[in-house]
Amino acid sequence: MRCLLSFILLITVHLGLFAQNVNKQNVPEKKSVNRVEITLPVVNGYTVLKCDFHTHTVFSDGLVWPTYRVREAWIQGMDVLAITDHIEYRPFKEYVGGDLNTSHELALPVAQQYGIMLVKGTEVTRKQGVIGHFNALFIKDANPIDQSDPEKALQTAYDQGAFIMYNHPGWALDTCLLTEFQQAMIDKGIVKGIEVFNNNEFYPRALSWSRDQKLTVFATSDVHGTINEDLGVPYSAATRPMTLVFVKEKTQEAVREALENGRTLAYFYDNVAGEEKWLKSLFLASVKLEKILKKEKTSFYRMTNLSGINYTFTIGTAQYMLDAGSSIQITVPANQREVSLEVLNMHYYEGRHPVVSMVLE
Amino acid sequence: MRCLLSFILLITVHLGLFAQNVNKQNVPEKKSVNRVEITLPVVNGYTVLKCDFHTHTVFSDGLVWPTYRVREAWIQGMDVLAITDHIEYRPFKEYVGGDLNTSHELALPVAQQYGIMLVKGTEVTRKQGVIGHFNALFIKDANPIDQSDPEKALQTAYDQGAFIMYNHPGWALDTCLLTEFQQAMIDKGIVKGIEVFNNNEFYPRALSWSRDQKLTVFATSDVHGTINEDLGVPYSAATRPMTLVFVKEKTQEAVREALENGRTLAYFYDNVAGEEKWLKSLFLASVKLEKILKKEKTSFYRMTNLSGINYTFTIGTAQYMLDAGSSIQITVPANQREVSLEVLNMHYYEGRHPVVSMVLE
Amino acid sequence: MRCLLSFILLITVHLGLFAQNVNKQNVPEKKSVNRVEITLPVVNGYTVLKCDFHTHTVFSDGLVWPTYRVREAWIQGMDVLAITDHIEYRPFKEYVGGDLNTSHELALPVAQQYGIMLVKGTEVTRKQGVIGHFNALFIKDANPIDQSDPEKALQTAYDQGAFIMYNHPGWALDTCLLTEFQQAMIDKGIVKGIEVFNNNEFYPRALSWSRDQKLTVFATSDVHGTINEDLGVPYSAATRPMTLVFVKEKTQEAVREALENGRTLAYFYDNVAGEEKWLKSLFLASVKLEKILKKEKTSFYRMTNLSGINYTFTIGTAQYMLDAGSSIQITVPANQREVSLEVLNMHYYEGRHPVVSMVLE
Amino acid sequence: MRCLLSFILLITVHLGLFAQNVNKQNVPEKKSVNRVEITLPVVNGYTVLKCDFHTHTVFSDGLVWPTYRVREAWIQGMDVLAITDHIEYRPFKEYVGGDLNTSHELALPVAQQYGIMLVKGTEVTRKQGVIGHFNALFIKDANPIDQSDPEKALQTAYDQGAFIMYNHPGWALDTCLLTEFQQAMIDKGIVKGIEVFNNNEFYPRALSWSRDQKLTVFATSDVHGTINEDLGVPYSAATRPMTLVFVKEKTQEAVREALENGRTLAYFYDNVAGEEKWLKSLFLASVKLEKILKKEKTSFYRMTNLSGINYTFTIGTAQYMLDAGSSIQITVPANQREVSLEVLNMHYYEGRHPVVSMVLE
Repeated sequence: MRCLLSFILLITVHLGLFAQNVNKQNVPEKKSVNRVEITLPVVNGYTVLKCDFHTHTVFSDGLVWPTYRVREAWIQGMDVLAITDHIEYRPFKEYVGGDLNTSHELALPVAQQYGIMLVKGTEVTRKQGVIGHFNALFIKDANPIDQSDPEKALQTAYDQGAFIMYNHPGWALDTCLLTEFQQAMIDKGIVKGIEVFNNNEFYPRALSWSRDQKLTVFATSDVHGTINEDLGVPYSAATRPMTLVFVKEKTQEAVREALENGRTLAYFYDNVAGEEKWLKSLFLASVKLEKILKKEKTSFYRMTNLSGINYTFTIGTAQYMLDAGSSIQITVPANQREVSLEVLNMHYYEGRHPVVSMVLE
Repeated sequence: MRCLLSFILLITVHLGLFAQNVNKQNVPEKKSVNRVEITLPVVNGYTVLKCDFHTHTVFSDGLVWPTYRVREAWIQGMDVLAITDHIEYRPFKEYVGGDLNTSHELALPVAQQYGIMLVKGTEVTRKQGVIGHFNALFIKDANPIDQSDPEKALQTAYDQGAFIMYNHPGWALDTCLLTEFQQAMIDKGIVKGIEVFNNNEFYPRALSWSRDQKLTVFATSDVHGTINEDLGVPYSAATRPMTLVFVKEKTQEAVREALENGRTLAYFYDNVAGEEKWLKSLFLASVKLEKILKKEKTSFYRMTNLSGINYTFTIGTAQYMLDAGSSIQITVPANQREVSLEVLNMHYYEGRHPVVSMVLE
Repeated sequence: MRCLLSFILLITVHLGLFAQNVNKQNVPEKKSVNRVEITLPVVNGYTVLKCDFHTHTVFSDGLVWPTYRVREAWIQGMDVLAITDHIEYRPFKEYVGGDLNTSHELALPVAQQYGIMLVKGTEVTRKQGVIGHFNALFIKDANPIDQSDPEKALQTAYDQGAFIMYNHPGWALDTCLLTEFQQAMIDKGIVKGIEVFNNNEFYPRALSWSRDQKLTVFATSDVHGTINEDLGVPYSAATRPMTLVFVKEKTQEAVREALENGRTLAYFYDNVAGEEKWLKSLFLASVKLEKILKKEKTSFYRMTNLSGINYTFTIGTAQYMLDAGSSIQITVPANQREVSLEVLNMHYYEGRHPVVSMVLE
Repeated sequence: MRCLLSFILLITVHLGLFAQNVNKQNVPEKKSVNRVEITLPVVNGYTVLKCDFHTHTVFSDGLVWPTYRVREAWIQGMDVLAITDHIEYRPFKEYVGGDLNTSHELALPVAQQYGIMLVKGTEVTRKQGVIGHFNALFIKDANPIDQSDPEKALQTAYDQGAFIMYNHPGWALDTCLLTEFQQAMIDKGIVKGIEVFNNNEFYPRALSWSRDQKLTVFATSDVHGTINEDLGVPYSAATRPMTLVFVKEKTQEAVREALENGRTLAYFYDNVAGEEKWLKSLFLASVKLEKILKKEKTSFYRMTNLSGINYTFTIGTAQYMLDAGSSIQITVPANQREVSLEVLNMHYYEGRHPVVSMVLE
């Protein structure tokens, strides 16, 4: 019996090019660009949003149009985006017009279509190491924040209801720094957040400050060009720095409330930094243990990482890497009731990692 | 204020090499090799197991030791494995001893430790295109199946309670083929399954037979060397062919029952083949729709693929690729109540793809 | 004897994050972003330049600043770039000023620093399917080309010494098309080139025209956003469409001369299209044969692809993929003196591939 | 004008699956598995061979058949391979027969077909930390080396003309170690080589010994399972440890001569270790400088890495990663005549990296 010559196997070509029986062949349109969905568990009843609260466009010193910023965030799995163009630094103003709200306004309709929550923000930008840079988030109007006195600028934003954070405390410096002005703004309750990661810099010292002074932690991209080329590699959960925000619901109010109450973690390059309690809760919600076999004096467990975050930890002297969406085999004495892990890629203070206990059933 | 010079960032190096402050530096031991967990949804209340029912070792004409086969399956996310060494073809027997059960027996303790369900099997191996090759799964003892009369061999396996499948119906032939002997074995109810994919060959014609003659479908690796090098690329959900088995619980009995009742799909290189009903159910359990915005006459939806399978489909004339763990944006007229997708990488018959309807809420 | 605890292994972390013993840790600056060097052989004494002659910025309907376009081209291994902003279509002009030369002028100093040859260009943009779009390359001043009569526009560019090409002959149409106007421009010698690939569309029919009417072939990105996101995947030799230009030296004059004399190939998504002679020459300069063993009636050869282009070909009925920088084993009868390959990913006319002969020594 | 519906674009699918118009679709056979060619320059007139002198098969405690080892080496770009099964440790001997030469003899015909130089070797295996493990390479017959007195075993190998090396000086120990026996063997000139890298362990201390005692350095895989799974990631230049041997021609005699004269480097996970002179020569043969622009007080250079090795270095305080086949931009004062680089991923002694000077033209 001969079979028919009738079937053409359709292959999912990742390059996106398809064989078509016509005199032009085309790739399916933009519609088929994919958004990466970074898997994060519900943690203590909270949904975890992926947020970038610090980005730029050609309306300050960025290199892309505001709508590009939205689409890039969508592709890279962000839930929340703020465009925070500098008020004071606009090198392209010879060619690019508009006012201090324009970049947000141009981005907004695209954000709505893509389901990206666009938080209105701006960056108050003064001499680093003296006054410094601050992001004001949830502002109403950026134009009146343009003031010569930095305290007045921040106060104006605050009076609009802004949540204000201190940016890149070590950027362009030999060290990380809290100046007199910055400390005063924190003490007055004007500044309530701090970047512990910006672009490609981690500030362990700022992490210690966040604990000592009860500041909300942030990791931001501060992207000016594009994530892929600013950060040197294609986007992924591991390469776009982001702030994880633990919310009750996916609204601007709920995000604002979470920032106010310090329910964030900074996530950057496979590292997570922030409050010890939230680090442990995130880890425990991500990783599951399953008993495989008890054989004489040894029990074999499968430990599975259901989240999109890679974890590295030690159990005693043995070091493990448990990648996102994978599992490892661990062996323990048969009578052991608990296993204790020091999670090396989680940080709650300079040089300190959370130690997590998991029950062996 | 100077900061302490005290912190060393621990980086998860994917190559697995760590900086250590000693006169030797070593990678964490075997323990930290990761198993890839291929995400599959529960489908109609059934758990979906990933199974390879056709593999070889040095005890027939394979190139690896039986324990390697188990560990490879574990790394690659398999739940169920059968080692099916040829009864009749053992080219290394000058050097390799044991009997027809040895490869299974050597593999079993390792399988138990790793939580791999090891189904006992063997391959009855006769001239391709005349009698052909058959896998007998869930056998008790391979030695008595070594008989000169092929029907007696299959009958012996059957009498042990084996589930018997017809292997690679197009292998080493110009076409795919059901010989008189094979048809007779099917008609007698001895042979109840068929490979629609083997190693790197897809048999659309065999898929049609599976529908017409109610045969259980299989995709198998038939690996002799290693998956990575036999199949040309590193393992992944896309590269190791596997049979998806829809079970009530994770036991040998439940797997046996599912095979008996045809609850399988063949999954290979981003394609899924089998019964239309199960294809549709798998797709619908994998993909979710979320309304983002209604704006004038258009509604915007986010379509998210929660599974580890990449899907390709058309909606009208537009073609989409919805990769594992990603989402796409689709737009529909605001008053539309339903969207209809032809899933191009799913196959239920030569040249036919399932058409799935999703409700727009 | 105890060893010293003194050594810290330095690991090249591709994510670019380094352990540093300070209170901030940073990635090495922009300097360490790498340019991919796509390996191409010298062909018949000509150097092969990688060129993208069709790109946009925010000064027309692109989404990036001109300097970004240069840096992107540098990272992606281009040698030659033209920014070809539309004369007639400038949707951001409410916000973006400058004249028709501004995007080129802003990009030029950065191009000089990075060693990117920046060809001055513009796109004459009229109704597709009637007049169509044309790139004028090597222009002197874009402003006077802004004319209502399309023929006058092209003539003005031509009089400035421009090389003019017809863009995306099938874009936004059901088919690919040469209108009366376009044919007239070709017949008059005003238009001398044609895109056989644009962005994600291949026009086999245009390839036939290029042979029949002696037009210089081009593949261009026509990028508006970024290559990574417009084209759906990270940049690589396989994903950025480019025109390969065979030059005597790396100067603007030499590129102009090569275009004039048709010494180009279109390279896109692992496919190469253009004149048969240049396809064969490129292949033969890329691939080497080495005799490994003669054993009885069979000779074993190693075939090595020294270039950065992946090749797919058949020898008789066997199909081979010979990836960039890799080799394969082929076997031939010991007395055979020559091997003949049909190179399937090379195209010189609709449906026709070059057949290359290699001598067996 | 309508165009013909005649062309089907052939796409190079990296998964290796092709659309074929038949009732079975198959991947092109084994022939199209590719060998990775790791690009290494000629260094000081010597060809650089990629060699693995330490591997196992099922004939000792490995998990693969000898022919698999050859094919794996071929795929992974090796030029030279030694199978060095343990003489004294053969856990599978209940099932696997043959004598101490069998694994080499089974592998030899396949090695000849693939152009892999198969060096005959064996591993003399005694208690680690007391006597230790030694590879004897270029032996004539492994059987008489099976002797109870370890010195007699090594002397027998030596008398056959073997080159003998001391394996993994830190394996299964807290530190790395040279015992009295080992030192004696070195002093007598019986042992002339040492592993500074084995599998996943680097021994900086052993590197210091190699310099102090003029021992030839080796990096070996010591693979028992497969490279992909033993070493945790797919093969590549970065993941298979190998010994680079600088030879006058590609013959066994020339390899033997190079080992005798210490012309080797150990290459492992993007690191290179060995004699300072050869490290510098390799770097300088790999990396080229091209002047791009002199602009006021600054000169811009493109630095290109033509080799398959990734380099990391500092120039002053700036750190650069120059990946294989890529280039970076560096800027220097216009009057500078030379640039000095400390190559961090090259090692010639515990904690010491070569400093290379490049002339700026």
